[in-house]
Amino acid sequence: MKKISLFLALIIINFSIKAQKIKKIEPPFWWADMNYNQLELLIYGDNIASFTPSVENEDILITGVKKTENNRYLFLDLDVSKAQVGTFKINFTKKGKKNNFSVNYELKQRSSNSKFRTGFDSSDVVYLLMPDRFANGDVTNDSSSEVIEKGNRSLKGGRHGGDIQGIINHLDYIKQLGATAIWSTPLLEDNQSTYSYHGYAISNPYKIDPRYGTNKLYKNLAEKAHEKGLKLIMDYVTNHWGSANWIIKDLPTRDWIHQFPNFQRSNYRMTTQYDPYASKIDTKLCMNGWFDTTMPDLNQNNPLVLNYLIQNAIWWIEYANLDGLRVDTYSYNDKEGISKWTKAIMDEYPNFNIVGEVWMHNQAAISYWQKDSKIGAIESYNSYLPSVMDFTLHDALTAMFNEDNASWNDGMIKAYNNFANDYLYSNSNNLLVFVDNHDTQRINEIFNGDIHKYKLALTLISTVRGIPQLYYGSEIGMRGNKNNGDGDIRKDFPGGWENDSNNAFINSGRTKKQQEYFNFTSKLLNWRKNSKVIQTGKTTHYIPENNVYIYFRYNEKKSVMVVINNNPKEQIIPLKRFAENLKKYTSGIDILTNTKFDLTQKEISVQGKTALVIELN
Amino acid sequence: MKKISLFLALIIINFSIKAQKIKKIEPPFWWADMNYNQLELLIYGDNIASFTPSVENEDILITGVKKTENNRYLFLDLDVSKAQVGTFKINFTKKGKKNNFSVNYELKQRSSNSKFRTGFDSSDVVYLLMPDRFANGDVTNDSSSEVIEKGNRSLKGGRHGGDIQGIINHLDYIKQLGATAIWSTPLLEDNQSTYSYHGYAISNPYKIDPRYGTNKLYKNLAEKAHEKGLKLIMDYVTNHWGSANWIIKDLPTRDWIHQFPNFQRSNYRMTTQYDPYASKIDTKLCMNGWFDTTMPDLNQNNPLVLNYLIQNAIWWIEYANLDGLRVDTYSYNDKEGISKWTKAIMDEYPNFNIVGEVWMHNQAAISYWQKDSKIGAIESYNSYLPSVMDFTLHDALTAMFNEDNASWNDGMIKAYNNFANDYLYSNSNNLLVFVDNHDTQRINEIFNGDIHKYKLALTLISTVRGIPQLYYGSEIGMRGNKNNGDGDIRKDFPGGWENDSNNAFINSGRTKKQQEYFNFTSKLLNWRKNSKVIQTGKTTHYIPENNVYIYFRYNEKKSVMVVINNNPKEQIIPLKRFAENLKKYTSGIDILTNTKFDLTQKEISVQGKTALVIELN
Repeated sequence: MKKISLFLALIIINFSIKAQKIKKIEPPFWWADMNYNQLELLIYGDNIASFTPSVENEDILITGVKKTENNRYLFLDLDVSKAQVGTFKINFTKKGKKNNFSVNYELKQRSSNSKFRTGFDSSDVVYLLMPDRFANGDVTNDSSSEVIEKGNRSLKGGRHGGDIQGIINHLDYIKQLGATAIWSTPLLEDNQSTYSYHGYAISNPYKIDPRYGTNKLYKNLAEKAHEKGLKLIMDYVTNHWGSANWIIKDLPTRDWIHQFPNFQRSNYRMTTQYDPYASKIDTKLCMNGWFDTTMPDLNQNNPLVLNYLIQNAIWWIEYANLDGLRVDTYSYNDKEGISKWTKAIMDEYPNFNIVGEVWMHNQAAISYWQKDSKIGAIESYNSYLPSVMDFTLHDALTAMFNEDNASWNDGMIKAYNNFANDYLYSNSNNLLVFVDNHDTQRINEIFNGDIHKYKLALTLISTVRGIPQLYYGSEIGMRGNKNNGDGDIRKDFPGGWENDSNNAFINSGRTKKQQEYFNFTSKLLNWRKNSKVIQTGKTTHYIPENNVYIYFRYNEKKSVMVVINNNPKEQIIPLKRFAENLKKYTSGIDILTNTKFDLTQKEISVQGKTALVIELN
Repeated sequence: MKKISLFLALIIINFSIKAQKIKKIEPPFWWADMNYNQLELLIYGDNIASFTPSVENEDILITGVKKTENNRYLFLDLDVSKAQVGTFKINFTKKGKKNNFSVNYELKQRSSNSKFRTGFDSSDVVYLLMPDRFANGDVTNDSSSEVIEKGNRSLKGGRHGGDIQGIINHLDYIKQLGATAIWSTPLLEDNQSTYSYHGYAISNPYKIDPRYGTNKLYKNLAEKAHEKGLKLIMDYVTNHWGSANWIIKDLPTRDWIHQFPNFQRSNYRMTTQYDPYASKIDTKLCMNGWFDTTMPDLNQNNPLVLNYLIQNAIWWIEYANLDGLRVDTYSYNDKEGISKWTKAIMDEYPNFNIVGEVWMHNQAAISYWQKDSKIGAIESYNSYLPSVMDFTLHDALTAMFNEDNASWNDGMIKAYNNFANDYLYSNSNNLLVFVDNHDTQRINEIFNGDIHKYKLALTLISTVRGIPQLYYGSEIGMRGNKNNGDGDIRKDFPGGWENDSNNAFINSGRTKKQQEYFNFTSKLLNWRKNSKVIQTGKTTHYIPENNVYIYFRYNEKKSVMVVINNNPKEQIIPLKRFAENLKKYTSGIDILTNTKFDLTQKEISVQGKTALVIELN
């Protein structure tokens, strides 16, 4: 033991004295046996570019040394394809050996089956939460000394103290709800001086924000979640970093970010990315313009940036054992760059899943960005992005349940029309379906607190193709109005803070209303968890009549009839029309109410603003 | 001469005596040297199916004789690929020769270059008129004894007396206006007892309605039009016939039309034709349901029907020397049948053009139906239809000019967004662009008579890609409100009837307001007639700012800058942004006002609600 301690001490001394020139090496470590084995280390330190690096390991080849206009950076390209697990030495030498030094770099052992991990998919229900607003599990980190903005729960746009420990503490709640995957908005360090709680202005891509916890705690969250059968999805930002990002503050190259003479906002017109007539200047300003003053726009076409972002994403997946990524503002990235980024990750983890935010309003435009899209292929583009968000369904859902009277274009026909266009997608079962998220109006605000409408919407997203996604709080009827600012749709989850008078995490703490929302959601989602036919079955749907939308999910073994009656009045549904799907089935049970239906009768009835989910027998 | 007359007389006698059993042969004649040389004659007559046909011409082969459940029909398949121009005899024989007879059938000489006729294209401007409502050139045919409904100008939905002679009389007007092609709504016989004026319930597919004139007069219209450099487009209806159609009244086969136990209206949900989830019953009812009670839905999947429709269309093109077809309700036809129909016509006339009515509201859906569409190809469908109508642009045009204040989604961005999706089309320059037609609200009604808005709309459709189409009367500011019934948007053109107090066909007869509309239209369209760069040039457009939409049409030789200022206030346009297109050009002239612009200046100005069409120099 003594010997080992002495040995470790010597390493530490060696590093602290000789390697004092090095402030950062990123990625801080890597793994052996990775598909991504052409590593590019970012080495940061005073005058580091004046040193010549070499490696003391015959299995590791230096394939390139890149210097930039900033001599504090050195990019070291290593072929580690033949390297073994272990630590190797990188020597830095210079004329006049006095300043020579070396550092150790580690290639870790991958966990088993890392490569073939299965990403989230249509068997899942994703629970989206904002960590600052979910639960404060550790009050000691609320105002970490490492970061500028301190906790202040009285500010709508301030740091409220929620953290990773808070999520860990409520994994059982999420499980009880029936969700099977957690998408937390970014947890990486966002050291903006104000309004940092949303986390999309990342200041340190290799570090969990200290107000949320540590890298180790994040890894622990994944472990604990996996133990409970929950998957973990990281919210990844490729498009921009925060202005407080350490690399942004000391750029390796001027073109690391898109620069303009004055601040240049993106025009946000994503159509320019496929429009055959778009002017060059508009196309460029969409991609290269900044998302906001505090968010310098990264240049994914710069190979140094691209490699950095690929490695960083893979590093987190491998390190924390993640089950998926959600990519922010996907279609604002450099088109070719983001395609390479996505492909690199999917090449590393072929069964993984990544969902990109493509906030557009027609199916062709959204489909353009999905992997192997025939729409993208028109312009020879393939993003390699497996999953996109069904924003057109969101548009429909947020409008139609307030439309009591059906017309040619209003009411349930909006959902029907949305799905009718599914042929435009290369994989419609890998769409994220949702009624609200952290950037949209809250659904219970849109529904003005009408639980009947919530039930209709939740039933729909839980029974159609794709991957349902809930937004934290909506499952207990939480409201909040985006017109009052984003803070209003990102309120603290009741019970997440020690002295909260209302604790909606537990049965006994919920109001009657909250309990009604929760019970319905939990019942439906837990049923879905075991319903293969909903997860992967085929669909047949029928043109809505009288504002009633009826569809069937079926496979060779099972069939479910879903009736969404958006009409405020009771409707009598003649069954003859559905013969194609009712086939030989003679009865069915509504899983929401356990009501039995005799399907040998000519018709069934459904109450106003009510859904039925009938398992056929 | 005597010999010939005697010969003719003998033929006539021969036919009238021996061929009395035959009431119709359709097509009534054909041509030699056609690509379509596998002819299928419909032969109609009492008990005709009991006769055996034969042909006295060794160059002509009978390839099939088809009998149906109705013995008044015989379908005779002839291979005429080797046949010469001339008349041949078809003999009809039967056991016991007493009733044998024969008829002559003629194969005419095609006019030269018939095959390679050029259809209407983006060099054209199409003038759409309704013949009953355009001009009454022959009052003697207003109440023909051959048809049920007589002339009655006092009825909004009645026959007003307009006719082919009326069109012929005003070809100079159309030419002066600057249009180069005429699309008349159907001129074939529509013998419904009421509301027949629209002509879409055809009763005799081989006969011009006697209230419009004769077949010969229609042919004459085409000749006269061609002499003046005008093309003629026939409005063809494949989807349905009128209930008064002679074949409908004595069906050859029950499945000639789509039959239902009771009247079954189409559900009109065209999405069912590509929707992967559509139920079989909905899909069938869309295609097979009737458009209206008086319009039995033809079964294009029945080869007899398909051949009849192909031959009828080709017959009219060849007979009247047409330059294009417009196909009604294209996407309500049987999908495979209409594709074969369209292909057969395009195979006959490879440079022809056919525009189909696909009244849908997103570009992918419309594009689906265009020839070689990559959207259609997703489901392995190819309609072979060269041209579709830009209904999404129509949606934009009819909304945006009433939107003075631009927002993220309102104002000129609607036009910009429409064109941004052009990559979805296989040929965006073969789209019909229009602000109104005989089925939509009239544009001057939408604009509430504001000529500034009319000018903006007309300028736009006349300078973007595609084929502009005007609707008769709009060019003189005609109004009419669809909410008051279709008759209101199909009023008589002033001056088309003898005692009309207002004659808008001539300069001296127009009101000041009409003259202003006409002059603007005529100026713009006549300029377009010679502007190759507008007809076939490339496009670059810029994201609208302050409700001003700016785009360039250019080729290697020329460039035109179009400025559509939809803002009611004067706008100053800094030119720097347009460097990509302004290039070395130093000046330009607005062809609408002959105003010269110095493009070396930093900016130009444009009045509120005003368009500029600047030819660059």
